[in-house]
Amino acid sequence: MTFIPGLSQAEAIAVGHSVALPQLLIDAQTQVKADLLHVIDQQDWPEILHKAVRHAALQGGKRVRPALVYMACAACALDDVLYPAAARRAAVAIELIHCYSLVHDDLPCMDDDELRRGQPTVHVVYGEANALLAGDVLQSLAFEVLSGSWFSDQTLSASVQLAQMQSLSQAASQMVKGQLLDLAAETKQVGEQELETIHVNKTGALIRSAVRMGAYAAGMMTPAVLNDLDRFAYALGLAFQVQDDVLDVTSTTETLGKPAGSDEKLQKSTYPSLLGLTAAQQRAIDLHHEAIQALAGFDQRADGLRALADFLLKRTA
Amino acid sequence: MTFIPGLSQAEAIAVGHSVALPQLLIDAQTQVKADLLHVIDQQDWPEILHKAVRHAALQGGKRVRPALVYMACAACALDDVLYPAAARRAAVAIELIHCYSLVHDDLPCMDDDELRRGQPTVHVVYGEANALLAGDVLQSLAFEVLSGSWFSDQTLSASVQLAQMQSLSQAASQMVKGQLLDLAAETKQVGEQELETIHVNKTGALIRSAVRMGAYAAGMMTPAVLNDLDRFAYALGLAFQVQDDVLDVTSTTETLGKPAGSDEKLQKSTYPSLLGLTAAQQRAIDLHHEAIQALAGFDQRADGLRALADFLLKRTA
Repeated sequence: MTFIPGLSQAEAIAVGHSVALPQLLIDAQTQVKADLLHVIDQQDWPEILHKAVRHAALQGGKRVRPALVYMACAACALDDVLYPAAARRAAVAIELIHCYSLVHDDLPCMDDDELRRGQPTVHVVYGEANALLAGDVLQSLAFEVLSGSWFSDQTLSASVQLAQMQSLSQAASQMVKGQLLDLAAETKQVGEQELETIHVNKTGALIRSAVRMGAYAAGMMTPAVLNDLDRFAYALGLAFQVQDDVLDVTSTTETLGKPAGSDEKLQKSTYPSLLGLTAAQQRAIDLHHEAIQALAGFDQRADGLRALADFLLKRTA
Repeated sequence: MTFIPGLSQAEAIAVGHSVALPQLLIDAQTQVKADLLHVIDQQDWPEILHKAVRHAALQGGKRVRPALVYMACAACALDDVLYPAAARRAAVAIELIHCYSLVHDDLPCMDDDELRRGQPTVHVVYGEANALLAGDVLQSLAFEVLSGSWFSDQTLSASVQLAQMQSLSQAASQMVKGQLLDLAAETKQVGEQELETIHVNKTGALIRSAVRMGAYAAGMMTPAVLNDLDRFAYALGLAFQVQDDVLDVTSTTETLGKPAGSDEKLQKSTYPSLLGLTAAQQRAIDLHHEAIQALAGFDQRADGLRALADFLLKRTA
């Protein structure tokens, strides 16, 4: 059930901070890719929909949100099952939502992007209508997986699934709200507070939901604990976005797998454009610190979350 | 809680077949419109998203799917509460899914329609990007409402909500599959079997889900009863679509609120084009008969469903 080559994730977490993070993320990527593949393969779809959805969901990507689901589950779990069914469903579902948002975001009427993860975007390969429908079905499929009995023949916990559904559907709505605010911001100068509101919705909501759904998967419903995790995820989500803005300035198209410098070209308000590059880099570091502080009450079972936060700050793409 | 002007729906159902159906449908329209308005008004959205969503969801429409939810609930209910919270959530959710599908279907990259329900379509008024995002958020909001605690401060039944979520998310995926099959069929001649497959997915899946979710709202989980309702909804969904094709030939743009004769203009395969108009009309009558037969085991509590089926066959728009 765990699909881990070499060192188990439990062992990796057990030996704590000194373990190189990428292995955790690689394991998460392996797990979620296998599960996505399984779910998509089971769909009775016309061939072109299969192809478009596979293109959207199986072409790589960092799989940060699924990794957050697994690590949040591990942080709250009482046993050493790293990928319980409720976490696997949530990981697949949140990645499907993320992928749908990218497909629609890339459409000509939105950002009109032709490159994503180093590949031509879905509409470039399969046409606009199919890309639109692929995005639509990725969203439906997310909720189908989350509410279904995938990866498990055990008795399901309806209350866990319902809590996950509430979290993910709210986050999906917030994400669209954030996209709309972002769209409206393209034509005007926005301040730091407005920029934060955009990102808290556009990317932050899914990151908070990933962490919440992971905790729910471990049966965690204690408000104080969930509140700490929310604070962690809020700061992490914002740090992630600030870092994204920084990388758009400091990295290359080849490393990013999408056009670097596109924010400046579009005259978008970003943290570097508002604060300057150095202050933006410092802001990412401060937010990372806030995220780690929010986990102060957790023991070593949260080392996976800590390691993910470290990696996301230090990444170059 | 019931929002019914004049005769109550319970009274209407109680006096049986002789009651004119439109009142049932008018009551359902009143109920779901009030609930949609309530849900949409509670959203913390940018103004343009509010406007686009209101345009998509509150401009009329027959509200057939919500009415089916309420009537299926009534058919299975042991008390005379006509609009329990679980039915109200399902009615709002399925109408939101239906509206999202119309917004995306009308987009330039799809059918490129400028008229819907007698009004300019969402993208004509608010632009393509906002229409795309409005459709996206209508889908998320559907699942948010269905999994949430709207219209009720009572203890929720997680198992009912989960069953409804499974039904609606599967139906939403099937609907997209149907749209894709429909899109592919535009460029070729299809047979009656293929046409049925398109409609069973494109429109039938939501109609079956409406009936299922209504039954679940009444706590009905008995396989034999659900099976009868599925047979009813399958035949009704197909009858509805055959009748839609017939009306596209026999009705006017003014009555339909969308361009009449558009199927022929697009050289689409329809029941009248495959079978001839008279045989298509007969097919609708036969399917209606099948639908009514499937309800043979139900008492007068299913008269609302019977009356809806009668109305849908006799409608002119």
